[in-house]
Amino acid sequence: MTMNVLGFAAHSYKDALTPHRFERRDPRPDDVVIEILYCGVCHSDLHQARNDWGGSTYPLVPGHEIIGRVVSIGSDVTRFKKGDHVGVGCMVDSCQHCTACESGLEQYCEEIPTYTYNSVDRHDQMHTFGGYSEKIVVSDKFVLNIPDGLDLKGAAPLLCAGITTWSPLRHWNIGKGSSVAVIGLGGLGHMALKLAKALGAEVTLFTRSPGKEIDARRLGADEVVLSTDNEQMYAVKNQFELIIDTVPCVHDLNPYIPTLSLDGTLVLVGFLGDLDPLLNTTPLIMGRKSVAGSVIGGIAETQEMLDFCAKHRITSDIEVIRIQEINTAYERLLKSDVKYRFVIDMTSLKE
Amino acid sequence: MTMNVLGFAAHSYKDALTPHRFERRDPRPDDVVIEILYCGVCHSDLHQARNDWGGSTYPLVPGHEIIGRVVSIGSDVTRFKKGDHVGVGCMVDSCQHCTACESGLEQYCEEIPTYTYNSVDRHDQMHTFGGYSEKIVVSDKFVLNIPDGLDLKGAAPLLCAGITTWSPLRHWNIGKGSSVAVIGLGGLGHMALKLAKALGAEVTLFTRSPGKEIDARRLGADEVVLSTDNEQMYAVKNQFELIIDTVPCVHDLNPYIPTLSLDGTLVLVGFLGDLDPLLNTTPLIMGRKSVAGSVIGGIAETQEMLDFCAKHRITSDIEVIRIQEINTAYERLLKSDVKYRFVIDMTSLKE
Repeated sequence: MTMNVLGFAAHSYKDALTPHRFERRDPRPDDVVIEILYCGVCHSDLHQARNDWGGSTYPLVPGHEIIGRVVSIGSDVTRFKKGDHVGVGCMVDSCQHCTACESGLEQYCEEIPTYTYNSVDRHDQMHTFGGYSEKIVVSDKFVLNIPDGLDLKGAAPLLCAGITTWSPLRHWNIGKGSSVAVIGLGGLGHMALKLAKALGAEVTLFTRSPGKEIDARRLGADEVVLSTDNEQMYAVKNQFELIIDTVPCVHDLNPYIPTLSLDGTLVLVGFLGDLDPLLNTTPLIMGRKSVAGSVIGGIAETQEMLDFCAKHRITSDIEVIRIQEINTAYERLLKSDVKYRFVIDMTSLKE
Repeated sequence: MTMNVLGFAAHSYKDALTPHRFERRDPRPDDVVIEILYCGVCHSDLHQARNDWGGSTYPLVPGHEIIGRVVSIGSDVTRFKKGDHVGVGCMVDSCQHCTACESGLEQYCEEIPTYTYNSVDRHDQMHTFGGYSEKIVVSDKFVLNIPDGLDLKGAAPLLCAGITTWSPLRHWNIGKGSSVAVIGLGGLGHMALKLAKALGAEVTLFTRSPGKEIDARRLGADEVVLSTDNEQMYAVKNQFELIIDTVPCVHDLNPYIPTLSLDGTLVLVGFLGDLDPLLNTTPLIMGRKSVAGSVIGGIAETQEMLDFCAKHRITSDIEVIRIQEINTAYERLLKSDVKYRFVIDMTSLKE
């Protein structure tokens, strides 16, 4: 017995998203059934709807920045009750027994996490469908508590954009007095500025657009460096212990490496692909610097981030849309024409 | 008043090394005057004699794996006395006041260390000349104590090949139970195997030559993986917390990244240049892995390494040559025809 749900789906890599009815599993004892209130629009929704990375299975219902209300719980669920505000991010399950899972790093599950959409449930082999829909059924281990006081629609992007930048900030021990830079001011970048600043760091934004300075400072940047200006780049030589590189497309890393301090790390969180042009090793070797990658974050640290955001009154800067506007939103996303995240008001599904 | 010294020098990028007389500075109060007994032959000697990296100044006297005997000391020197066996590595001075120097990481001196040769002394602006010579004059801060019991000629390569692999092993906390791999079995690689093994790690050698297995096991490798064999590479997926990449020429890093464990680091210690082919970010991001660089090591950790080697009876596997054989040795070095380091017996200078 399954549950029939309305959502918006892509039916092939070249089609616009359209209304689509599909089945969700009958809740298992550890499941939470969630009525979806808001869902953020991540660039990877677009990538996967259009099969940019390969491996997309259709129909594909995107959405992994989900905020909702619990409508029912399975018999084993104790952490949630009907009416609670909850969140679901990029993962809905993982093997739960590998070293990564046992360390609370489900995003690095050695058997690959079950993603919120375009994945296959590891118990019943049903396809997973994301948050551009009325309801979702998720194991309680992967459901986050949304603390009181956090604006629900602004909190949606925390589930991906927030945790993706929070996890490296925490892993590389950023805190009071740390010197951090962020490359790119989009959905991820604007969260990185807010979170790094709230953690007590000195924060610099690297950008190619002089027009972004005022917004960057409002969002938490102490300094803004034009990455196309050699003099400005030279002035921040050896300065940053961590650079969070949020750029989602191919770009040259070489100008940034000299701005890392001794033992500094540039961590890529947005770009899957080949580093073109060629990366030069000399500044890495002569300053024991690193280029690293990081993906989303574990469930425990996602909860930690949500609690931190509630305490520091941090949410994403958003533009609320109706689900019927999603295809236009995708076109605007391609032009970076959003400040800084689209969030779908899912009540619009009923229109 | 200066000191006239005989050595071997390159007089241009295309000339063979020939005997050459030059001046060393009159010892300053903190100087140690050292009669050179042995000098190791590092691949960078060849690179700089031939101006492969640019910036070579001629005449150029190479050599930075120096073992000698103290013949006199300046009035302020207390750590050494006449007759002591001492070593000099790649650096003879640094600014002594930047953050790196104050942390004992003179190799990362923000004002650039004074290198043992092809550099300019920061006090009197004289050119520095290396260990292919009778004597050297070095500030006591940059002179290493050679512990009793360490074979003097086998100890020479510890001053560069040894410390270059020791420093990343220590920085990335390699010890009992760690899983380490080494890429390349040359001067650096064979030291990496010995040191990692003595630190208690499980050690794997990556090589493209099946013929190296017996030697690799003798030197400390628990496993040998043919990097050209996809099946063998797949079998070590997610295995190594640290890979020390000693390859001195351009090579493809992509096959190695998947063999790093979660949070693992591949550290380049031998190749200055562009990473060709393009480095793919996906396995870095999906396992929070890093590509880093590291150069030689600080003075304090060089002493620590020498003491460790004396305790564990570790020296380099060497082939002793006379200085008159240096040009032939360079040709053999280009063909990797040495097991595993040439060391010049400097008494041959008197022939």
